[in-house]
Amino acid sequence: MSRIAYVNGQYRDMRDASVNIEDRGYQFSDGVYEVCEIRGGKVVDMPRHLKRLQRSLRELRIDMPMPLASLEIVIHETVRRNRVNYGIVYLQVTRGVSRRDHAFPINPVKPALVVTARGLNFQKNQDTASKGIGVITIPENRWPRVDIKSVSLLPNVLAKQQARENNAYEAWFIDHDGHVTEGASSNAWIITTDGKVITRSADSGILAGITRAVLMEVLAALQIKLEERPFTPAEAYEAAEAFVTASSQIVMPVVRVDGRNIGNGKPGPLALRLRDEFHRFSAFS
Amino acid sequence: MSRIAYVNGQYRDMRDASVNIEDRGYQFSDGVYEVCEIRGGKVVDMPRHLKRLQRSLRELRIDMPMPLASLEIVIHETVRRNRVNYGIVYLQVTRGVSRRDHAFPINPVKPALVVTARGLNFQKNQDTASKGIGVITIPENRWPRVDIKSVSLLPNVLAKQQARENNAYEAWFIDHDGHVTEGASSNAWIITTDGKVITRSADSGILAGITRAVLMEVLAALQIKLEERPFTPAEAYEAAEAFVTASSQIVMPVVRVDGRNIGNGKPGPLALRLRDEFHRFSAFS
Repeated sequence: MSRIAYVNGQYRDMRDASVNIEDRGYQFSDGVYEVCEIRGGKVVDMPRHLKRLQRSLRELRIDMPMPLASLEIVIHETVRRNRVNYGIVYLQVTRGVSRRDHAFPINPVKPALVVTARGLNFQKNQDTASKGIGVITIPENRWPRVDIKSVSLLPNVLAKQQARENNAYEAWFIDHDGHVTEGASSNAWIITTDGKVITRSADSGILAGITRAVLMEVLAALQIKLEERPFTPAEAYEAAEAFVTASSQIVMPVVRVDGRNIGNGKPGPLALRLRDEFHRFSAFS
Repeated sequence: MSRIAYVNGQYRDMRDASVNIEDRGYQFSDGVYEVCEIRGGKVVDMPRHLKRLQRSLRELRIDMPMPLASLEIVIHETVRRNRVNYGIVYLQVTRGVSRRDHAFPINPVKPALVVTARGLNFQKNQDTASKGIGVITIPENRWPRVDIKSVSLLPNVLAKQQARENNAYEAWFIDHDGHVTEGASSNAWIITTDGKVITRSADSGILAGITRAVLMEVLAALQIKLEERPFTPAEAYEAAEAFVTASSQIVMPVVRVDGRNIGNGKPGPLALRLRDEFHRFSAFS
């Protein structure tokens, strides 16, 4: 089956789904995006993702491309047309098409909207989680406004590629103070040997992850102690468990950091439990 | 006359000139660009620009989209089809179209190439130069790899917009040590009251500007003393003259920095002289 994308008002075959070369997303990475998980054909935590989308757009002073209710319909319709039961839906909004000039268009243009959906192999992802992933650490080199989920992702691309070339799946950025900020496409977590779950506060240096926020509710409900604070790679090496969170990964156990085994080198029991419990606390729509 | 763009093998009307939504330039800002001036229908310093393009691509491990000689033909043909006598030619190369995944495509894809050209109003630019432009200073917030001329330009977009909203045309980034790195789309220069021309070394924190490099040859030929070193906004405020260099601006006098007049608040004589002399030292092709 060929994939279908929503592009600026039309549902198109992916091969014909295109945007103008003067779309500011293409020339300036002047746009933002969101990724939501799809489970049982439903979109997971869509209201939270759309709220964050609105925040990202507001920070860049890009208008919403359509009313929220219409956007929800487009998302659902894109999922439906691609017959995705388990997978992800991706949406991207850019400032729109305008003759190339760095500053915002003087005559406002209509923001561009692209929505795609695709199925993922559920069993394959479960298998990955049952083995766990490796992580490398690299110096933070992104701009400070990582709280905006922008498509200005070139540092993340290079980080992910470096991870792959080091037999890892994710790269954790390390700030000037020697603390982990977050992964190139996920938030970073460790669990100490005395059972405390640690993740950096979303106040600075990281994106306020939706999966991260929902997981905090899971932890509270399960009465598991959470500490929001920065941690170092050295703390990670000595941790009982580690994991990352992202919409497409939910809770993904980390079994190696910089080539060192975490715990016994197998996915930790608490990480796996959180992965199992997670969707009891999600909103489906 | 409608504008014509070269896009991946075809010359298209700009309105129909498009790239796939999964072009990595659009989803990840995973690409680079160049802008050359066009004068008398000729491309200014094209070999240097193409050499820098090749370096940017090499740093990102993106292949050249076609042999150098073919690329030169496409550039000339795009200029010709748009009948540009004075203006700019823009070229953008991205890693190509691939299913969204941060790391490089596992099965290599063909890099994407877009070339556009457009006429500019020569007299209008001369008028701007005869009045000079204003500059603001803002904290450096770009990633360290600004030596790569990538389309990951969102910080530059916001900087240029902030400049405009402060009645200025350019924003100079200030690094942690309090020195000017460069402008959001230009290199930064001052001339001291004792006649020395100062600009930051291209070793770190800035793009190695082509106009910057050619101007250094102009200075040498005219036996004007150059100091390659960082300077502070305070030094700029007290300078005799200031200017910026960029392919589309050549030497553009700066008459205000952070609202303070430079010199007598009019374009400086040396900056205007350098602007006049510049093209004697350029290569035209």
